[in-house]
Amino acid sequence: MKTLHDTWQQVNLRFEALLKELYLDHGEPQALLFEAMNYSLLAGGKRLRPFLTYSFCQAVGADAARADSAALAIEMIHTYSLIHDDLPCMDNDDYRRGKLTNHKVYGEGIAALAGDGLLTDAFRVLTSGSLDAAKACACVRVLSQNAGPWGMVGGQVLDILSESRTCTRQEVLDVQSRKTGGLIRAACQMGVICAGGSDEMLRAAGTYADHLGLAFQIRDDILDQTGDAALLGKAVGVDEGKNTFVRLYGLEACEAMVLEQTELAINALAAFRTQEVLTELARNMAVRNH
Amino acid sequence: MKTLHDTWQQVNLRFEALLKELYLDHGEPQALLFEAMNYSLLAGGKRLRPFLTYSFCQAVGADAARADSAALAIEMIHTYSLIHDDLPCMDNDDYRRGKLTNHKVYGEGIAALAGDGLLTDAFRVLTSGSLDAAKACACVRVLSQNAGPWGMVGGQVLDILSESRTCTRQEVLDVQSRKTGGLIRAACQMGVICAGGSDEMLRAAGTYADHLGLAFQIRDDILDQTGDAALLGKAVGVDEGKNTFVRLYGLEACEAMVLEQTELAINALAAFRTQEVLTELARNMAVRNH
Repeated sequence: MKTLHDTWQQVNLRFEALLKELYLDHGEPQALLFEAMNYSLLAGGKRLRPFLTYSFCQAVGADAARADSAALAIEMIHTYSLIHDDLPCMDNDDYRRGKLTNHKVYGEGIAALAGDGLLTDAFRVLTSGSLDAAKACACVRVLSQNAGPWGMVGGQVLDILSESRTCTRQEVLDVQSRKTGGLIRAACQMGVICAGGSDEMLRAAGTYADHLGLAFQIRDDILDQTGDAALLGKAVGVDEGKNTFVRLYGLEACEAMVLEQTELAINALAAFRTQEVLTELARNMAVRNH
Repeated sequence: MKTLHDTWQQVNLRFEALLKELYLDHGEPQALLFEAMNYSLLAGGKRLRPFLTYSFCQAVGADAARADSAALAIEMIHTYSLIHDDLPCMDNDDYRRGKLTNHKVYGEGIAALAGDGLLTDAFRVLTSGSLDAAKACACVRVLSQNAGPWGMVGGQVLDILSESRTCTRQEVLDVQSRKTGGLIRAACQMGVICAGGSDEMLRAAGTYADHLGLAFQIRDDILDQTGDAALLGKAVGVDEGKNTFVRLYGLEACEAMVLEQTELAINALAAFRTQEVLTELARNMAVRNH
């Protein structure tokens, strides 16, 4: 059996090539927009969300290529959210993954438009690939529901509102399930839709996503307290004073929660034909951060 | 025959009620986001784009209600573009239609997210109404193509790039056809799609839109030079030094161009069952501004 790492690397090789083809410069007058979108889109990252989309497509029993449009769309939405998040009016970050943020290179106006462009174009990509209309439509619905006012954007507003006060456990869970959980849910469920999976599988993918997303966020909060900045490749201790799971539950309880959520995620996989990759991915989440 | 004004007013009454139903506060924690989205969405305006969508749906021979999702979606995209346009990193406007701009009331972070929320949610609305999957999918494709990097967002980048220099006629036309033309084209074509119109009608709606959009923009440029601020309800002379059609062609030639474009728009209506409202709308464009 191939290890998770090898499978992921192989999927990513193909995916990175697809990403590069999206905004080639054919001499368009708006080439600068393409450049700014590519700057963030092609800045690397582990491509967790597209990998989930591909893996769920395969877990249903279909060829991964069936999920290409959905994998591209979820990464485009993820990338737009990072560009807008980094803007001075939001988190005001100068660096991301060791590179200058989009607006530090292209200016705030172009960066805002690069985000708008990626967000809008994700829906063109979903409906212009090889998916039939019913599947494309279902993907648009799942993606917009989880990325929009009831999903990620709603979560970001809750996050802004919670900054200046101490939140309850329910509130912290609510921010997490929308802000980071939304796109993970959409990624998993779109994979099932692209493969033509059953409604039961669609629900199971949602359950897996909810537990994986929660494990992911708690692990992130733990690493901010205990991680090694050099090994993680990012600053630690930045959550000091924030409404994190570690602050609410303490380190020990958080470690137990990660394990519990991981097992709950794995249990949801019973509905699928193949489960190895997604099981390994969840277990991996229990020990390190992605 | 009912006048254009009466028809428009009647359509708008129903449309405003639909808009109000989108973001009701059912005690959601993200109610502030709904409030910010509603602030701009329900701020009035002539609703030209939804009216075009409804009118083309009826021109094909279908009931206007068939185009409800598309009419809502185009107005949501138009509204998001105004919110983001007004941000300090873009045009930095404090007032729009006599009201404080979104970020002056809710702050830049919430305003940016209100825009992102409306943009994302337009695609949920399109795919969650009564349109069948094929029509919903076609609408998503037309809207994202005309609003995204190849459409409105691309046009806004071109506009930013052209600010500091004198543009050629082709460049000014290119900015216009993307920046304001994109959404007008999507509005007209989605109406035909919702009604199940033919490919010929779809092309004709695009042709009407292109000529109407150009007439609309040239009329806007003329009014900035010759209009009465009190009658128009907005400041005039703000285009001084900008790359306008008036600067490139002069006032007299612009008046002739508006008439010419209006006639070309009307000619494109031959493909449709009923043409009265859309004809009147185009002629109206030749004498006043919307």
